[in-house]
Amino acid sequence: MGVILVHVANADPAPWIDELRRQAPDLDARGLDAVGDPAAVEVAITWKLPHGLFRTYPNLALIQSMAAGVDHVLADSDRPAHVPVARVVDPWMARSMVHQVALAVLRWHRRLDWVEAMRADARWPTGVVFDADAVRVGVLGLGHLGQAVARAMQDLGFAAAGWARSPKVIDGLDCHHGPEGLRALAAWSSVLVCLLPLTPETEGILNAELFERMAPGSLLVNVGRGGHLVEDDLIAALDAGRLAAAALDVFRTEPLPAGHRFWSDPRIYLTPHIASEINPVTATRVFVENIRRIRAGDAPIGLIDPAKGY
Amino acid sequence: MGVILVHVANADPAPWIDELRRQAPDLDARGLDAVGDPAAVEVAITWKLPHGLFRTYPNLALIQSMAAGVDHVLADSDRPAHVPVARVVDPWMARSMVHQVALAVLRWHRRLDWVEAMRADARWPTGVVFDADAVRVGVLGLGHLGQAVARAMQDLGFAAAGWARSPKVIDGLDCHHGPEGLRALAAWSSVLVCLLPLTPETEGILNAELFERMAPGSLLVNVGRGGHLVEDDLIAALDAGRLAAAALDVFRTEPLPAGHRFWSDPRIYLTPHIASEINPVTATRVFVENIRRIRAGDAPIGLIDPAKGY
Repeated sequence: MGVILVHVANADPAPWIDELRRQAPDLDARGLDAVGDPAAVEVAITWKLPHGLFRTYPNLALIQSMAAGVDHVLADSDRPAHVPVARVVDPWMARSMVHQVALAVLRWHRRLDWVEAMRADARWPTGVVFDADAVRVGVLGLGHLGQAVARAMQDLGFAAAGWARSPKVIDGLDCHHGPEGLRALAAWSSVLVCLLPLTPETEGILNAELFERMAPGSLLVNVGRGGHLVEDDLIAALDAGRLAAAALDVFRTEPLPAGHRFWSDPRIYLTPHIASEINPVTATRVFVENIRRIRAGDAPIGLIDPAKGY
Repeated sequence: MGVILVHVANADPAPWIDELRRQAPDLDARGLDAVGDPAAVEVAITWKLPHGLFRTYPNLALIQSMAAGVDHVLADSDRPAHVPVARVVDPWMARSMVHQVALAVLRWHRRLDWVEAMRADARWPTGVVFDADAVRVGVLGLGHLGQAVARAMQDLGFAAAGWARSPKVIDGLDCHHGPEGLRALAAWSSVLVCLLPLTPETEGILNAELFERMAPGSLLVNVGRGGHLVEDDLIAALDAGRLAAAALDVFRTEPLPAGHRFWSDPRIYLTPHIASEINPVTATRVFVENIRRIRAGDAPIGLIDPAKGY
């Protein structure tokens, strides 16, 4: 029974360690400063561990990302390739992601910014009809989160379809795949939601070529990673009216630098990476279960394929 | 085959008459100015027909409200009591109502106003977790719209329960009734959504006695009628922090008078009676069907009980 290293970039790991101990008092959970002998580290639970550290733990048996994505782990080229990597799969996070996307879509569809502008002038418009039949939500990425979002859009009475790198069959959902499928989905959608993993294939996938296929006045929702978006292409699409708005929760540099033009552009619904914030209580349940599985020789929940990147 | 009178207070009935003729070319649809012989009027499709007019149509066979509510019809004390009154029951309107309520609940739950304030200062908060488990939506009124909203809240992963004047049994939904049940629901809810019909029993039902039972920081959503709300009690509940916000789509006087304090209170999510705007195409389908039914001697869709008021 080795050490469970808990590390959260730019944050105190103590609340996580406390929650681990609360749920599993027998675990020897420690922060980076208290690890002691590197050979004792059995599991690394981490958000953005400094590159080069994984390889210093010779007995590491599991790398557990503290997020739905593992790009921050795979970006460490010194990572020992034999150690399994797991992402967090947690219904709590899926529900939060659904809420984030639903809020963005409803805010755009029901023209909240326009309503607020009317209000500022004490104006009372009449004959306002929101045509929900015209809302077609294309979801890029059909994993745990993407499927949850597509279903939720359908539950709300919106048309939805999806896209993944490889063919998928999902009951009740049109699934496109490959480059041709991506272009077809963009042409169909009035909302594109990015929930892809960030990999070399998906870096910069939200670009001018995609935007120009969409109908004027469309909405982009990026809740994947900042690296999916070509920022200059987004501004051009907004300026051209191709996109009416973009809901961005993730950015190439986080926190978003002061002075970045996204801060002040009213067409951008900016949120500070809060779409699917990890919940210490429910995520720790997953961590405890995965430690149990690794010790029993079973595959952890959320095991990823490093070759695919997700 | 008599005249189908089409009347919309403060609006041109021509688009409605055109749509009726498009869907049913045999119908003799006319505006108030072109009615001719009052004895020829067979059906009155109306939003707020001036009081006293219904009784001038001796052969009136159906009063069709152009809204989900019929309070504007029943308020005419000269209305001939034997003429059936129908409200609009239209899935289009239910979906729009669901969207209106979902947007209000998500805006409050995910603290959009606070997020926007952070953004205005280019601040990047960390550790933001929205506790969806703490959201409990109480729906007042369990008709077509109330049930649709309660289900949608459950689909979004929120707890929901309901209240109606008389006992109801709805699969998967806790239904309260009566004065005691109303108090119990208010004490349970962190969100109260009013979708009641406006009747003498429900006038002023959203009042201090109800608000003081709710947990601090709760949300009120009034998408029923302005007459449901005691405005001074709302302001007091907001000032006391009992309510964090109120989403109001309906008002005692509409349009809301310039200078009314609701216009400028940031704690009020104000919308200009657009929650469930009637859709000319889909609502006209209901009107055509109800004219057919009346002529065939059948009960119209959405027939109301004047004694109950809904």
